[in-house]
Amino acid sequence: MKPIQVGLIGLGTVGAGTFNVLQRNQTEIRGRAGRGIEIAMVAARNAERAKAYQAIVGDAVPCTGDAQQLVNNPAIDIVVELIGGIEPARTLVLQAIANGKHVVTANKALLALHGTEIFEAAREKGVTVAFEAAVAGGIPIIKALREGLTANRIEWIAGIINGTTNFILSEMRGKGLDFATVLKEAQRLGYAESDPTFDIEGVDAAHKLTIMSAIAFGVPVQFDKAHVEGISSLQAADIKYAEQLGYRIKLLGITRRRDNGFELRVHPTLIPATRLIANVEGAMNAVVVQADAVGTTLYYGKGAGAEPTASAVVADLVDVTRLATADPDHRVPHLAFQPDAMSNTPVLPMADVQTAFYLRLVVADQAGVLSRITTILAEHDISIDAVLQRESADGERQTDLIILTHDTAEGRMNEALAKMQGLPTVLAPIVRIRKEELA
Amino acid sequence: MKPIQVGLIGLGTVGAGTFNVLQRNQTEIRGRAGRGIEIAMVAARNAERAKAYQAIVGDAVPCTGDAQQLVNNPAIDIVVELIGGIEPARTLVLQAIANGKHVVTANKALLALHGTEIFEAAREKGVTVAFEAAVAGGIPIIKALREGLTANRIEWIAGIINGTTNFILSEMRGKGLDFATVLKEAQRLGYAESDPTFDIEGVDAAHKLTIMSAIAFGVPVQFDKAHVEGISSLQAADIKYAEQLGYRIKLLGITRRRDNGFELRVHPTLIPATRLIANVEGAMNAVVVQADAVGTTLYYGKGAGAEPTASAVVADLVDVTRLATADPDHRVPHLAFQPDAMSNTPVLPMADVQTAFYLRLVVADQAGVLSRITTILAEHDISIDAVLQRESADGERQTDLIILTHDTAEGRMNEALAKMQGLPTVLAPIVRIRKEELA
Repeated sequence: MKPIQVGLIGLGTVGAGTFNVLQRNQTEIRGRAGRGIEIAMVAARNAERAKAYQAIVGDAVPCTGDAQQLVNNPAIDIVVELIGGIEPARTLVLQAIANGKHVVTANKALLALHGTEIFEAAREKGVTVAFEAAVAGGIPIIKALREGLTANRIEWIAGIINGTTNFILSEMRGKGLDFATVLKEAQRLGYAESDPTFDIEGVDAAHKLTIMSAIAFGVPVQFDKAHVEGISSLQAADIKYAEQLGYRIKLLGITRRRDNGFELRVHPTLIPATRLIANVEGAMNAVVVQADAVGTTLYYGKGAGAEPTASAVVADLVDVTRLATADPDHRVPHLAFQPDAMSNTPVLPMADVQTAFYLRLVVADQAGVLSRITTILAEHDISIDAVLQRESADGERQTDLIILTHDTAEGRMNEALAKMQGLPTVLAPIVRIRKEELA
Repeated sequence: MKPIQVGLIGLGTVGAGTFNVLQRNQTEIRGRAGRGIEIAMVAARNAERAKAYQAIVGDAVPCTGDAQQLVNNPAIDIVVELIGGIEPARTLVLQAIANGKHVVTANKALLALHGTEIFEAAREKGVTVAFEAAVAGGIPIIKALREGLTANRIEWIAGIINGTTNFILSEMRGKGLDFATVLKEAQRLGYAESDPTFDIEGVDAAHKLTIMSAIAFGVPVQFDKAHVEGISSLQAADIKYAEQLGYRIKLLGITRRRDNGFELRVHPTLIPATRLIANVEGAMNAVVVQADAVGTTLYYGKGAGAEPTASAVVADLVDVTRLATADPDHRVPHLAFQPDAMSNTPVLPMADVQTAFYLRLVVADQAGVLSRITTILAEHDISIDAVLQRESADGERQTDLIILTHDTAEGRMNEALAKMQGLPTVLAPIVRIRKEELA
């Protein structure tokens, strides 16, 4: 059978990785796919870059500075979009679909924001949009959620799905350094970008979480309703106190089914140090899935990088190659559920989300302080799990008071926090980090 | 579309779990599969048992004591074989295939021993034999290896793929108990069978490893060439010494690609305590895969039990339901590679396998003992990584000498061991456990 023809838009880190993996492992890949997979054309942002790409891919593969030429090329069966960002990626993907081409993309932002439009267009044209590389890099988590766990009602997903922030948190804990210092180190090592906002503020994790939640619960992607909180204001002291209490702080993306809707949130989270996911260090990713039949499963691996991401792109290419000739009605649905089986379960507002909390209060070191604070918590029906009070040094007039609570609604906690913050004996803004048992 | 009709052979733990999951999650499963999945008939070993089954499944589903009736029933599209063992499972599966039915099975022994015959028969008839449940229960590891990592040249797999033995090892370490005591406890709790041989002697793990190795390397299943060693002779003392040296002992199934063949072996193994897989406790399973593009990935979950295994059976039912109408040539190949792309890479003999070793020698507490032993190792080109000598109590004439070696061929180690065992100052059989860094 004639090799399937692939057009590659973008030959940056992941694009070059994809090109290399397809070359190096072509015998194995053909042996699995039952058909060769060939790069027929590469597109760059402009003519100059196309020339640089030409040097990489050799004379046999034409490079163009005009991606429209690629998506309109009738010889191409599958378009691989690896430029990232919203435009021109969105226009190119939609144009490829309109031309009846399958699409493979690693673009989480595009799918988290415009997935509904893109999947609908693909369905109308009977083509597949595959996106394993968009979530957790080389870990085949989309396949696990969408095909491996089809028997289950998925209850929740919690993931370390951003390597940059996990690297920073690992370093802060391991070396006792503060956020700003470690961020600079991460930038020097190439683990963080020069503008790290998307990573450190949790936006990248929220894109990925949005896609996983849609697949898990059969709901449309709705990034705009995600609660997104990053790690830039996290202090080394809280990592240390958490450790004393038996917890690690990780930036988790959490989506959880509740009776009246589902949660969709990214924020720093205390988790028991004994959990496997609490021991995922450095730039590695891991996703825990809780489902009714299988129980807890965990998937671990590299969430970024040239070849780990290429691994997912090429797996999608093999899947699409196999299914290209199959009846569209029998392919795996984009979001796991058939379009007529999608649900309109709403995203819950954060005020209704139930979690436990870690609180750190800088308080005046005098009698009655703890009593006033615990009274406020009791008045809001918030019960206390543990209290840790730092011993104040001689002559010091203030100390740190750490409280772990049991589960409570965030809205109620916010009211209690406002009251506590108003006490004259509370001397600084209260630090509040959510805590999850993940069991 | 008419629901697909399933015949279920065996309504034991996993069969009943499958029946329950299909009932409970039928809306979700239909929403994903695009078509209902219905149990049309159940078969039991005999008429009496069929009657007991009838009480479970209700009047709407006929139960028979003659499984031939089920595999010959023209109304049935997919046969699910959950009776285990070689016969009558083999005959029933081949008969179902001959009748043009797809098969879903959890039977690792059957596939590890007769997979070649079964897959060949399925290919001739254009049907699928799906077996996610045969390896690591609910963890979708077959899907990950066969579809998620298609881009990769897989280098090695190391797995905790038997829950019984991992439970026993966790208890031995956690409570400092010996093997026999913990085995009894495991039997009382239902983690070990009354005849635990298949589990504790590594046979069950070797069945699963054989299937994974075939998928990873594109070779036929060849259980007869696997090296199989269990945990029944493992002593609490070695678990303790290993821990002092920074290692855990796990029963691992390891298959690794080498230049001249591949390794296929199950045995107790020291692994660094810092590895994620070293921290997999109790009856849980985990599989680490090392592959050239993606690097290290790990898959963790419940490897046995009614609903975890049912989760895998039903996932296979959904896959088969989707692909039932597709061209057989475009389905995922049984062993990942298309039949014409299979390789004849041989299984390496254990003498050629390279690992590091943990040795424990009971030696006379006198001068020159260590020197004689290290000389023998040096003569065999085996280099030492670490030595630990237990301080002998007053008046004691013997002590434990623990040696960690660097990597060496097993054949060479066996020669050195024979020499050391012959020394008059070596007072008991030498304990030898392989050690792997898994990195």
